[in-house]
Amino acid sequence: MIVVRETSVSTRFDPAALRAEARAVRARIRSGAWDRDTTGLAPGMVQANLMILPAAWAEDFRRFCELNPKPCPLLGMTGPGDPSLPGLGEGIDLRTDLPRYYVFRDGKRTDEVTDLLDLWQDDFVGFALGCSFSFETALIEAGVPLRHQEVGMTVPMYRTSIETAPAGPFRGPMVVSMRPFAPADAIRAIAVTSRCNKAHGAPVHFGDPAAIGIADIEKPSWERPVPIRPGEVPVFWACGVTPQVVVEAARPPIAISHKPGHMLVTDLLNSELAE
Amino acid sequence: MIVVRETSVSTRFDPAALRAEARAVRARIRSGAWDRDTTGLAPGMVQANLMILPAAWAEDFRRFCELNPKPCPLLGMTGPGDPSLPGLGEGIDLRTDLPRYYVFRDGKRTDEVTDLLDLWQDDFVGFALGCSFSFETALIEAGVPLRHQEVGMTVPMYRTSIETAPAGPFRGPMVVSMRPFAPADAIRAIAVTSRCNKAHGAPVHFGDPAAIGIADIEKPSWERPVPIRPGEVPVFWACGVTPQVVVEAARPPIAISHKPGHMLVTDLLNSELAE
Repeated sequence: MIVVRETSVSTRFDPAALRAEARAVRARIRSGAWDRDTTGLAPGMVQANLMILPAAWAEDFRRFCELNPKPCPLLGMTGPGDPSLPGLGEGIDLRTDLPRYYVFRDGKRTDEVTDLLDLWQDDFVGFALGCSFSFETALIEAGVPLRHQEVGMTVPMYRTSIETAPAGPFRGPMVVSMRPFAPADAIRAIAVTSRCNKAHGAPVHFGDPAAIGIADIEKPSWERPVPIRPGEVPVFWACGVTPQVVVEAARPPIAISHKPGHMLVTDLLNSELAE
Repeated sequence: MIVVRETSVSTRFDPAALRAEARAVRARIRSGAWDRDTTGLAPGMVQANLMILPAAWAEDFRRFCELNPKPCPLLGMTGPGDPSLPGLGEGIDLRTDLPRYYVFRDGKRTDEVTDLLDLWQDDFVGFALGCSFSFETALIEAGVPLRHQEVGMTVPMYRTSIETAPAGPFRGPMVVSMRPFAPADAIRAIAVTSRCNKAHGAPVHFGDPAAIGIADIEKPSWERPVPIRPGEVPVFWACGVTPQVVVEAARPPIAISHKPGHMLVTDLLNSELAE
């Protein structure tokens, strides 16, 4: 284990070594040797959310992403039936390179699988979307503390009254994640994430939760509440759960997403994504 | 008058024409034809705060600026006795190129003059510091509304309990300016100004005024309060009045600053100062 950690540290600023590590992670997942979450794997590399839809639904979803870049920052999109994403990584195969997938039929989650070899369709279009792992890495590197990580929890998420811009059948409320900060840290967090436009970007709100339709900050829609200390303000970012909620509501005959935390590890450096 | 305005608009994105306009403004000031404030002159160009100190005090002040880049973003510094700043503009002469100056003796303001030809000393060192005109221009260009401009007032400023980092005789509390925003505009204002590190940069605080030692937001230390509307938060930036207060407290035998609003117009584009 010590050897692995030393390798990670020594390769930290060597882009070629970081890319090689990302490929090694994908190969391990593809082989079936890793089916757990990707948190902390291939540090420094962009991880992406996944959405797969039949081609008939794809153009509306692409436009939805374009209209709603904060919750749905589009990193890459496949051609119909093509499981590769050469712009995001050498040899990526969306059918096998994520540890776990959720399958939705008519808007209802029906299965959890570790590959898509039996489910893949010739008309499937895959979308890779930026995720908060990238901006949380940027925050930690800037010395901004993240409460949910301090207390060993997942970030709490909330449905809001902020409406996304609709595209065809895709519409609905934005989901946000919340991180509490003292004002000086909130200012740094806003500055840092405003440079991460491909990973949700700057927050959409801070302060009064009721102003964006959150009735009780102690009752997230997903996960558990994190403590907010005296003098701190809650800061709200657009969240990658938004497209999943929107796709469920649109009820396509089939849709496939990553299982939360079980992401696509790409060959892009987090630093390449920052502006 | 119409001709002048049309010229300004048509030259807006032509750096050479913008620089020519800055030089024309300085020439007009130097000739004595303009002794009023520089607000709105040579739009798009960086305007700078000025501080002049005897050489014996200059190194400590330089270090003070280096240690306190938010209130004192150092754009340029002259050699002893040299009134030029070639890095900031062709032919700049600090003795004549600002419309009005304040003279301080032993920390007390004694005079207001329109040039320094009789006061200049062979040991004078001039410092040009970034000013909020640059970041306010960036905010307006980003579509972020500024309340004090809407209501035709000067931005209110407050002494705080935030201590500057001391250097020799230069020490004391930071002065801040305050602009109120709805949270979504505050987020944009933070993102925009975080790219203006040579013009005070990101805010130092938002929200509770008491947290930075401001007892009553309705009672600024300088200028009058601006209205804060329901749902808005006050956002506080480090202010260029800080070095003036610090120099007054240090009581050098002589010091000279610009008169507030009567700035040095430089040949630098605001866009060159942004990151």
